[in-house]
Amino acid sequence: MLYLTRRERFNAAHKLYNPAWSIEKNETVFGKCSNANWHGHNYDLYITVKGEPDPDTGFLMNVKELSYIIKTTVLDKVDHRNLNLDVDFMQGIIPSTENLAKAIWQQLFPYITDCKLHCVKIYETENIYVEYFGE
Amino acid sequence: MLYLTRRERFNAAHKLYNPAWSIEKNETVFGKCSNANWHGHNYDLYITVKGEPDPDTGFLMNVKELSYIIKTTVLDKVDHRNLNLDVDFMQGIIPSTENLAKAIWQQLFPYITDCKLHCVKIYETENIYVEYFGE
Amino acid sequence: MLYLTRRERFNAAHKLYNPAWSIEKNETVFGKCSNANWHGHNYDLYITVKGEPDPDTGFLMNVKELSYIIKTTVLDKVDHRNLNLDVDFMQGIIPSTENLAKAIWQQLFPYITDCKLHCVKIYETENIYVEYFGE
Amino acid sequence: MLYLTRRERFNAAHKLYNPAWSIEKNETVFGKCSNANWHGHNYDLYITVKGEPDPDTGFLMNVKELSYIIKTTVLDKVDHRNLNLDVDFMQGIIPSTENLAKAIWQQLFPYITDCKLHCVKIYETENIYVEYFGE
Amino acid sequence: MLYLTRRERFNAAHKLYNPAWSIEKNETVFGKCSNANWHGHNYDLYITVKGEPDPDTGFLMNVKELSYIIKTTVLDKVDHRNLNLDVDFMQGIIPSTENLAKAIWQQLFPYITDCKLHCVKIYETENIYVEYFGE
Amino acid sequence: MLYLTRRERFNAAHKLYNPAWSIEKNETVFGKCSNANWHGHNYDLYITVKGEPDPDTGFLMNVKELSYIIKTTVLDKVDHRNLNLDVDFMQGIIPSTENLAKAIWQQLFPYITDCKLHCVKIYETENIYVEYFGE
Repeated sequence: MLYLTRRERFNAAHKLYNPAWSIEKNETVFGKCSNANWHGHNYDLYITVKGEPDPDTGFLMNVKELSYIIKTTVLDKVDHRNLNLDVDFMQGIIPSTENLAKAIWQQLFPYITDCKLHCVKIYETENIYVEYFGE
Repeated sequence: MLYLTRRERFNAAHKLYNPAWSIEKNETVFGKCSNANWHGHNYDLYITVKGEPDPDTGFLMNVKELSYIIKTTVLDKVDHRNLNLDVDFMQGIIPSTENLAKAIWQQLFPYITDCKLHCVKIYETENIYVEYFGE
Repeated sequence: MLYLTRRERFNAAHKLYNPAWSIEKNETVFGKCSNANWHGHNYDLYITVKGEPDPDTGFLMNVKELSYIIKTTVLDKVDHRNLNLDVDFMQGIIPSTENLAKAIWQQLFPYITDCKLHCVKIYETENIYVEYFGE
Repeated sequence: MLYLTRRERFNAAHKLYNPAWSIEKNETVFGKCSNANWHGHNYDLYITVKGEPDPDTGFLMNVKELSYIIKTTVLDKVDHRNLNLDVDFMQGIIPSTENLAKAIWQQLFPYITDCKLHCVKIYETENIYVEYFGE
Repeated sequence: MLYLTRRERFNAAHKLYNPAWSIEKNETVFGKCSNANWHGHNYDLYITVKGEPDPDTGFLMNVKELSYIIKTTVLDKVDHRNLNLDVDFMQGIIPSTENLAKAIWQQLFPYITDCKLHCVKIYETENIYVEYFGE
Repeated sequence: MLYLTRRERFNAAHKLYNPAWSIEKNETVFGKCSNANWHGHNYDLYITVKGEPDPDTGFLMNVKELSYIIKTTVLDKVDHRNLNLDVDFMQGIIPSTENLAKAIWQQLFPYITDCKLHCVKIYETENIYVEYFGE
């Protein structure tokens, strides 16, 4: 078993806001992350797949194909977008890094067929990241 | 003459949009950076000052004081904010990294009095940065 | 199950020295790391917790709270300190990165109550790091 | 159980090419990575070992000894070399990062005797890495 | 005057070898960098241009256009290539980082017309880089 | 004119303390940097030289020779040392990063003879660096 990881990047706006709560409670819980006019991040996304390399290529998976799957199922929907307003797979979900990692797993999972999706890791800043292993 | 640099970071939303233009022209020129619902970045800010060290301290300037000036004149206004909507010193200015660097210079300049402000450098992504030397 | 990691940093002095050994044996085993007058490092500390996100916030744990726990139980005791002389929780322990990781785990463990402490990872230099998972 | 990781670096040339295939098929599968005249990389190698620290030293393993083993069994053979032509332990193997990780594991395994080899991780570029855990 | 920098990356093989010298002299001067079967690097390229921002866009130059110029005049010729054998603009030139920086300047210079080319900076490894300012 | 930069690293202990002042005044000015029992840093040192490349080698200066000069005149004296107590060229000097940069310039200057020393740049942490150009 080998593990292959591809890093991709995207830039997006978001805010942390629970619509069931008052503005005051949102500010108490989320602080400046709930600013009404949004803020944003350069997100670093690390996608890890696992499996056995193909003897003919030495590849677990062609990394260009992995990159293409990430682009079409995730980056095209989130890059230079607003995670609260513009992204179909985040509708009704608070765009915390935790929820984003789980949602990106759901996006990628059906398309990783030759080997297995192992981990979605997202850096929100250089000091904060989340990992999700699908269960 | 010595040069001292302090890095600070902030996260903000913005869009590139010229209000004198049609939506179509904005899309042609700015591409996805003009997305109506904003996008955002983790900005890395490097502020360089120059001068002679104080013989009693070995400091060009106390880096905590420099950090405090950057915080109160810049970070408190831009961090977790929308550069188009929330920032007094960016009103009426397209928030390109170039314009942002010049505006941050104007913010800092009056408060760097013991030594001289030398450079404002901003990374918008790991692949793009702008430097401004004040003239 | 999700994993959330927070990076913090501290700067400290230390030396590697076994008081049961002669100076010569310490030099043989630890080399320049045993220099009598100390040396030091910028330590990078990565603390990972695991659990399920709260549906109301999307947070595994509020990262500001995690940061506060790290600050009060670890950073306030080690930052700009001497690991051999100044740190109560390192008394009588050779301050190798391995021992430091275990001791920091012990400091943090009682305070991570809403989710579970998963990993303490410490970079001593850009080329050396240690991970401890608590068992 | 603790985990200790040492980073080392090497610079090498290679190409991805299956000699059982035509030039055309190699180009279709491997793209520009099959360029006849080679290309190259700065490889970052992370070697992780696991075990219990020695009470007398606080060390899982002396990191200088680990570094020496990596140097003599791996770096001396691959650094500033051609992975297809110059490296005895890569003969007959397509030098994908996956195959390289497995081969480096085989090189290191017999020499890590005081503790256990846990992981070989190789970055081919800042965006691609492979991990191998030996099974 | 503002300065805008774009980072690009390429992976290439090369060797350092003066054909006027014996193999022995090449080895004495260039060491393992003269290995007959090549080695290679991940090169990081930073291209800086200078000028005044356009009031309509806030841009010194559209960074996508700068990226396109770098791609067509430099990256398409060097990426996944052999700097000694495959690159027209390096024919007859020892591919040291110094010579590479000067040659890339010559490639770019005619195409940077709206503003001025200021600096070509190349990292050969994380520990070595060269800068050229055109004179 | 080309500029060649070599990065080296060292780990050292120090404290900021003016012996002409009381402990209280030292604490007021230097804060926790004046802790009696020292703290320390991983220092990153960037040495830049300038000149014309040798036509026979393409080198401004052999980077191994530059590295050797840095090692023998600087690193051997500061690495794993105490900057206040152990370093001959820092005797009687407050080891601020500013003073350290100037002192390292004095150490290197006599030995850079084939080309010219251009800049000494030191990172004390990832957020603070100082540059000195010799005048």
